[in-house]
Amino acid sequence: MSTIRIGIAGYGNLGRGVELAIRQNPDTELACVFTRRAPESVQLKTPGVPVYRLDDAAAHADEVDVLIICGGSATDLPVQTPALAKLFNVIDSFDTHARIPEHFANVNAAAADTGHLAMISLGWDPGLFSLNRLYAESILPNGKTYTFWGKGVSQGHSDAIRRVAGVKRGIQYTVPIEAAMEAVRSGSQPELTTREKHLRECFVVAEEGADKAQIEQDIKTMKNYFDQYDTTVHFITEEEFERDHTTMPHGGFVMRSGMTGDGETTHQMIEYSLKLESNPEFTASVLVAYARAVSRLAAEGAVGCRTAFDVAPGYLSPLSPEELRAQML
Amino acid sequence: MSTIRIGIAGYGNLGRGVELAIRQNPDTELACVFTRRAPESVQLKTPGVPVYRLDDAAAHADEVDVLIICGGSATDLPVQTPALAKLFNVIDSFDTHARIPEHFANVNAAAADTGHLAMISLGWDPGLFSLNRLYAESILPNGKTYTFWGKGVSQGHSDAIRRVAGVKRGIQYTVPIEAAMEAVRSGSQPELTTREKHLRECFVVAEEGADKAQIEQDIKTMKNYFDQYDTTVHFITEEEFERDHTTMPHGGFVMRSGMTGDGETTHQMIEYSLKLESNPEFTASVLVAYARAVSRLAAEGAVGCRTAFDVAPGYLSPLSPEELRAQML
Repeated sequence: MSTIRIGIAGYGNLGRGVELAIRQNPDTELACVFTRRAPESVQLKTPGVPVYRLDDAAAHADEVDVLIICGGSATDLPVQTPALAKLFNVIDSFDTHARIPEHFANVNAAAADTGHLAMISLGWDPGLFSLNRLYAESILPNGKTYTFWGKGVSQGHSDAIRRVAGVKRGIQYTVPIEAAMEAVRSGSQPELTTREKHLRECFVVAEEGADKAQIEQDIKTMKNYFDQYDTTVHFITEEEFERDHTTMPHGGFVMRSGMTGDGETTHQMIEYSLKLESNPEFTASVLVAYARAVSRLAAEGAVGCRTAFDVAPGYLSPLSPEELRAQML
Repeated sequence: MSTIRIGIAGYGNLGRGVELAIRQNPDTELACVFTRRAPESVQLKTPGVPVYRLDDAAAHADEVDVLIICGGSATDLPVQTPALAKLFNVIDSFDTHARIPEHFANVNAAAADTGHLAMISLGWDPGLFSLNRLYAESILPNGKTYTFWGKGVSQGHSDAIRRVAGVKRGIQYTVPIEAAMEAVRSGSQPELTTREKHLRECFVVAEEGADKAQIEQDIKTMKNYFDQYDTTVHFITEEEFERDHTTMPHGGFVMRSGMTGDGETTHQMIEYSLKLESNPEFTASVLVAYARAVSRLAAEGAVGCRTAFDVAPGYLSPLSPEELRAQML
């Protein structure tokens, strides 16, 4: 069987993670990388793989079985995924939950028109967390679902900190509140406010001479980002920042607390959790497993847009259905 | 849209659980119950639903969209599922892992020959735990998977206790060892022996005048069931047994400890757990969600045998694909 030729569009943290995940999956290979930078400025970790200008993607459509688009959800993916779905079978990790229906419609139209298969919003949330919400709610219809995030780096909140005057470097950790999680696990199905579920911890390197009290005040009162949370701000040196805060851990919990039985008094608890030392590397691993699924489904003739909800789990595994039943069921 | 007419074959703990789960799913209804007992001796919780002799099932095939077979895996299901798959779309919870390929082949032949759809080995292990092993291993190919069971009642081990001379009543709890789970969560990927993963806790009501020391000795040395474990035996009164040990809690943990990144040094942890106050009620809830999937897949023309690996998650939910994308992704 020939290997699945994966292309990467966008060579940032996520794109580099995809490159590394491909190495762990012997039935896949890295075909090429597309970039908006000057191709000669991009140094891949994989020798001998071509780097092309993203604008030239159409010329290389037949070199790729599945293209993994590694742009950002705010401005890149809404444009890139529909455009590239006209040329390739594509995958993205679009994670602006509220705009998923619109993105789905745009990508579906582009892919269906041109006979391609697209999968959007893969990763862990949306992605694996969504799958767990779906399975758990289908199985326990009488219940309540809770999602907690962290402890981990929120890119959006870190960006917000860095826009505050006097901040040289900054990072924000979202921290789930243990007492809230324990209340959920008890089966009491609590109503939890935003403040009760998560707290926000910031580490800031201030510019020389900056007013730290003002920085702290500006962060803690920032609308939507921090004002609804208990936020702590720690000022640290640039050396401490370099030493302790340059990785991107994340994770979280999906919990379903449900009731079954006569009178619905039997408590049943489903919990799924991730503890990730690297968010982009893990997300990349999810994308590559789904690239296998896209390649197989496309070979079966599937076209248009799909999400994780539409793909039978067996498509993700390199094992055959017989092997899966014998070894993993 | 008409409701899904579900039949139940076998009205024990699991069958009663299915009856209760149907009440929680307004798009399903209980069509009838088949039993090996005298039908007039079976009192359902649902008024107006007919109870038929299992031997007469063929006469009622057109009253049922999906039949959930609630027999035991040792002797019932290997015979019942292939036989009933010739008459109905069927679901079972066959859980003898080693014999799944053989059971699959038998059921597949029966269902495919007669144009029916069958799903086997549903529940939580096999079932939801299998799904989690599959997703996690597909996403983190470099890693190690651990399954822990409990704390919960093992029916097989409880039956074994009750066969010991001098035992009037007995129940066995499988208990996962916290230190082993913590070692897994640390990312060290330990090699764990059977004894290191679980211990076995037995509660026994002895017959009057029985030799308790002998009972304890007989249990602890029982080959395969107890000899490889640290086992404790507690002697209690019949009143204590009645008060504290007549429910069927269970649960467990599936953990995948994997490595990603350059040099594969980044630790990533996936954990799934269930904490169930009633094992049969929860298993029944899984079966009813999959009955929805079977009904839909059969309407699309699917025939033969399937497992949880073959069914896209969206088929389990009463929500439409549009609703799922908008609300749950």
